[in-house]
Amino acid sequence: MKIVLIGAGNLATNLGKALFHAGHEIVQVYSRTEESAKTLASVLKCPYTTQTENVVRKADVFVVAVKDAALQTLASSLQVSREGQLFVHTAGSMSMDVLSFERRGVFYPMQTFSKNKEVDFSVIPCFVEAVNENDIQLLKKLALTISDTVYELDSENRKYLHLAAVFCCNFANHCFALSADLLKEHGNIPFHVMLPLIDETAGKLHSLLPREAQTGPAVRWDTNVMDKHLQLLSDTPEIQKIYELLSKSIHEEELKN
Amino acid sequence: MKIVLIGAGNLATNLGKALFHAGHEIVQVYSRTEESAKTLASVLKCPYTTQTENVVRKADVFVVAVKDAALQTLASSLQVSREGQLFVHTAGSMSMDVLSFERRGVFYPMQTFSKNKEVDFSVIPCFVEAVNENDIQLLKKLALTISDTVYELDSENRKYLHLAAVFCCNFANHCFALSADLLKEHGNIPFHVMLPLIDETAGKLHSLLPREAQTGPAVRWDTNVMDKHLQLLSDTPEIQKIYELLSKSIHEEELKN
Repeated sequence: MKIVLIGAGNLATNLGKALFHAGHEIVQVYSRTEESAKTLASVLKCPYTTQTENVVRKADVFVVAVKDAALQTLASSLQVSREGQLFVHTAGSMSMDVLSFERRGVFYPMQTFSKNKEVDFSVIPCFVEAVNENDIQLLKKLALTISDTVYELDSENRKYLHLAAVFCCNFANHCFALSADLLKEHGNIPFHVMLPLIDETAGKLHSLLPREAQTGPAVRWDTNVMDKHLQLLSDTPEIQKIYELLSKSIHEEELKN
Repeated sequence: MKIVLIGAGNLATNLGKALFHAGHEIVQVYSRTEESAKTLASVLKCPYTTQTENVVRKADVFVVAVKDAALQTLASSLQVSREGQLFVHTAGSMSMDVLSFERRGVFYPMQTFSKNKEVDFSVIPCFVEAVNENDIQLLKKLALTISDTVYELDSENRKYLHLAAVFCCNFANHCFALSADLLKEHGNIPFHVMLPLIDETAGKLHSLLPREAQTGPAVRWDTNVMDKHLQLLSDTPEIQKIYELLSKSIHEEELKN
């Protein structure tokens, strides 16, 4: 397919590379920043522009992969002279209808993208949505050229998916960060000692559901250990509160099942 | 070394196997439950007993790997006739001094152990402590026969290590559990779609510290997305509160650095 890539950040870069390697033709890259546009265009062997009015008028899909805040304005400025074209955005938390094109859709690859870290797109689940059935099929077909896992999901349910991803990724990672802080302040143990535990915690989920895999004082409701832990956190009341709420919530989850 | 194993639960089983495979002689297994004692003893090719008075009197190390609640009472009942022997417990959260033997110590392998899931002990960090310098060296030597990562750590700092492990393991896992609940209730997406994201979140930490790896709305302080997420959680005020506190804490962590 002929694809125009609007954006040259982490997601646009990773997605662009995956599409290019799958044999699609990236017709053009647009970015406000010349440096970013140029860098990505050279990887994707295609022209670039920094001016919305110079974005090509026709392609099979226009993929708008920019910051949520810039999405709506940028898309609107592209709408003139491109009616009838298929525009999709890549933002998990945004409704499809932030775009006002007749042929609008969403192409959401659910992953955490970091600069300078290549990702294997084939294992990233992609969630697609579009107004027209034909466009849904086109996006599914496109997604399947780069990913083994493709779902059709509407905007309402995708909001919850995105929220679920925040828990799995950002909040779990913050638990790791709080752990790193504790280690730094007590005993001078380097954080990497936690990696086998973290890898095992993540690895278990390939054979168990999270609630089946739960261990530790909260799921046993071992108030003796929990009280001692709360005591250790008395200098940081916010972290203490997080400990308390997460422990109660683990207990609730256990009682539910 | 000649080792007596007091306990036959998850940790005792995993540790016993690792010690056995490293060439140590497990002299005897004790468990209150005959079934457990028998099962583990057959794996470790050694005799077993269910009576504390029948536990052997001499060995290089007595490893007491039982539930925290049972530890002190059980250890006391073994103390008679075994003065001069080295007794260690394996509980991360317990002080060395819950044992009252003159030669007491701790041997804490930091990992989450599940039944029926073999673990590779060599990557599990072990934390040792003892009253006598000779015993510290003995425990370090023993630990190095089964693990590549061995630290000496006193009881006070080990409390924080154990707390840090609760954040890395139990609390991160609970974030996964909350995520699974959200997916179950909205859009009927199976939890396994989250595995690539979870694996990447854990995998990143092999090259980045958690706070360097953080992404998502809270670290960007994107109140637009966060407010929408809080709205989605309005039916579950406890989870909403967890979302709010973790987001604030991510923001605090970001401001600190």
